[in-house]
Amino acid sequence: MITFDTIREAHDRVRPHIHHTAVLTNHTINDRVGAELFFKCENFQKIGAFKARGGLNAVLQVAERNEGNAVTTHSSGNHAQAVAFAARQVGLPAYIVMPRTAPAVKKAAVLGYGAEVIECEPTLEAREAGVQAVIERTGAVLVHPFDDDRVIAGQATAAKELIADFGADKPFDTILAPVGGGGLLSGTALTTYYLSPSTRVIAGEPEGAADAVLSFQSGRVEKAPYIKTIADGLMTSLSERTLAIIRQHVSEILTVSDDEIAAAMRLVWERMKIIIEPSSAVPLAVVLKHTDQFAGQKIGIIITGGNVDLGKLPF
Amino acid sequence: MITFDTIREAHDRVRPHIHHTAVLTNHTINDRVGAELFFKCENFQKIGAFKARGGLNAVLQVAERNEGNAVTTHSSGNHAQAVAFAARQVGLPAYIVMPRTAPAVKKAAVLGYGAEVIECEPTLEAREAGVQAVIERTGAVLVHPFDDDRVIAGQATAAKELIADFGADKPFDTILAPVGGGGLLSGTALTTYYLSPSTRVIAGEPEGAADAVLSFQSGRVEKAPYIKTIADGLMTSLSERTLAIIRQHVSEILTVSDDEIAAAMRLVWERMKIIIEPSSAVPLAVVLKHTDQFAGQKIGIIITGGNVDLGKLPF
Repeated sequence: MITFDTIREAHDRVRPHIHHTAVLTNHTINDRVGAELFFKCENFQKIGAFKARGGLNAVLQVAERNEGNAVTTHSSGNHAQAVAFAARQVGLPAYIVMPRTAPAVKKAAVLGYGAEVIECEPTLEAREAGVQAVIERTGAVLVHPFDDDRVIAGQATAAKELIADFGADKPFDTILAPVGGGGLLSGTALTTYYLSPSTRVIAGEPEGAADAVLSFQSGRVEKAPYIKTIADGLMTSLSERTLAIIRQHVSEILTVSDDEIAAAMRLVWERMKIIIEPSSAVPLAVVLKHTDQFAGQKIGIIITGGNVDLGKLPF
Repeated sequence: MITFDTIREAHDRVRPHIHHTAVLTNHTINDRVGAELFFKCENFQKIGAFKARGGLNAVLQVAERNEGNAVTTHSSGNHAQAVAFAARQVGLPAYIVMPRTAPAVKKAAVLGYGAEVIECEPTLEAREAGVQAVIERTGAVLVHPFDDDRVIAGQATAAKELIADFGADKPFDTILAPVGGGGLLSGTALTTYYLSPSTRVIAGEPEGAADAVLSFQSGRVEKAPYIKTIADGLMTSLSERTLAIIRQHVSEILTVSDDEIAAAMRLVWERMKIIIEPSSAVPLAVVLKHTDQFAGQKIGIIITGGNVDLGKLPF
């Protein structure tokens, strides 16, 4: 059970290691959507993504409690960097299982933090088998990308800062986050429930990885009908744990196409002059697609990260 | 004569219309160069570039003093947007002469501010002839991109904010700006001379538009040996006016190649997660090239803008 105290303690634990990131606004985009958008810029976070928060909250506790002499995880990118970065902060070795298709810039960053990279085929089965082999070989402790209360409580601290900084005088009508495995969304929904209960939490999901919207309806962890999206951070499915939190605290999950994601991403690059990765553009794509639904609202959006392979832009 | 009062008055005049832009730092880049860099982010400025400052300071004075019923200029990009934006702020028509080779995104932005675009061949002669035709047809007042004390005093306000915000306790050792026509460099050098006289001002210039370094040596306005650079905002030559200020208040002009500019630009995109245009990367390219010269220094860098044609990246 992740209480508000869990999230507050997570924030106290990770605070010395992270940036309290900026929140940006943009007149042109506000005019275009007819709403007031506040972008929480986790692309400016350590390792270039919010995942630093969850990775740190888990790895710092592994170290505090002497749970093991190393950490491991599997990730297509940002969580890999997060665990590698967090392990370096506490002086533990990190073994990171990454699909061979992961962006080169993300692999280079993991190596740069001094972690060992083990490549595998880009399937969930191969990733889990890779981690199992690491655990048997090294005794490392697994830090799952999202199916872990400590990771979820860490991710929850981004929305905590957003609400404390910009939702105090007048609460947000809506806070939007993208959904992949559901770690960020779960944390965002829990924080919002505790700190700003009148605020609706809505998730954006790529049409090409539309498992969460199905699971949200059926109440069971479903697979996506197909996986093909530029939002490479959002390809994973929910877990029982994240689905339960999301069913309880999220109002709605809306899907967008890759073209819509690319257009939103380009809009942010061109007008806000910040680098965001495709996954980060999913919530704005949702707002651009459903302007009627969001008209006149005060909206918080978690910009999840800015780790883009500049050689492979979707526009 | 641009006194400190001129610059202070310019700041008071433009302040209601501009952003007081953020100053960013980056640990990775600091570690790499062995110095402490403060990036003044004019890519977050109105119109996406510092030129909003100079354009506004000139156009607001044209309006205040009833000097004419319209404004005009020639520019390859950001100054065009600046004058169009400033004219809209005061309700004057703007006629902007732009080379037909100017980036599409910059032309679109000028049109978006309600200005009329007159295309011309990409030569200084064609641009000046285009402006002359506009003046004869409409009686518009010329707002020159840099050969104008009001424009220079406006550009000077960027360094004024940088020094006030981050140079008060401990002065900058060096402030770097790129040089094209010399408006920003002149303004930066004057502000620094008035506010932080112990700080050296150094300019960066592309090898493929290396007129300023020659003029700086000879004391006469020289032409570049050749013009070929990705830093499309820096192709113009100095004027007598800007050369005089630069010779008096700038310590040194250092040149960098297009490869060095592209590498510095990419470094900022990848590590700082902000969009900067090639011209903005020139000062960092200078620091990366001459790390010995700048080691251990506290350095201010004016990031001039972020208006990039995303379809034409130099990497």
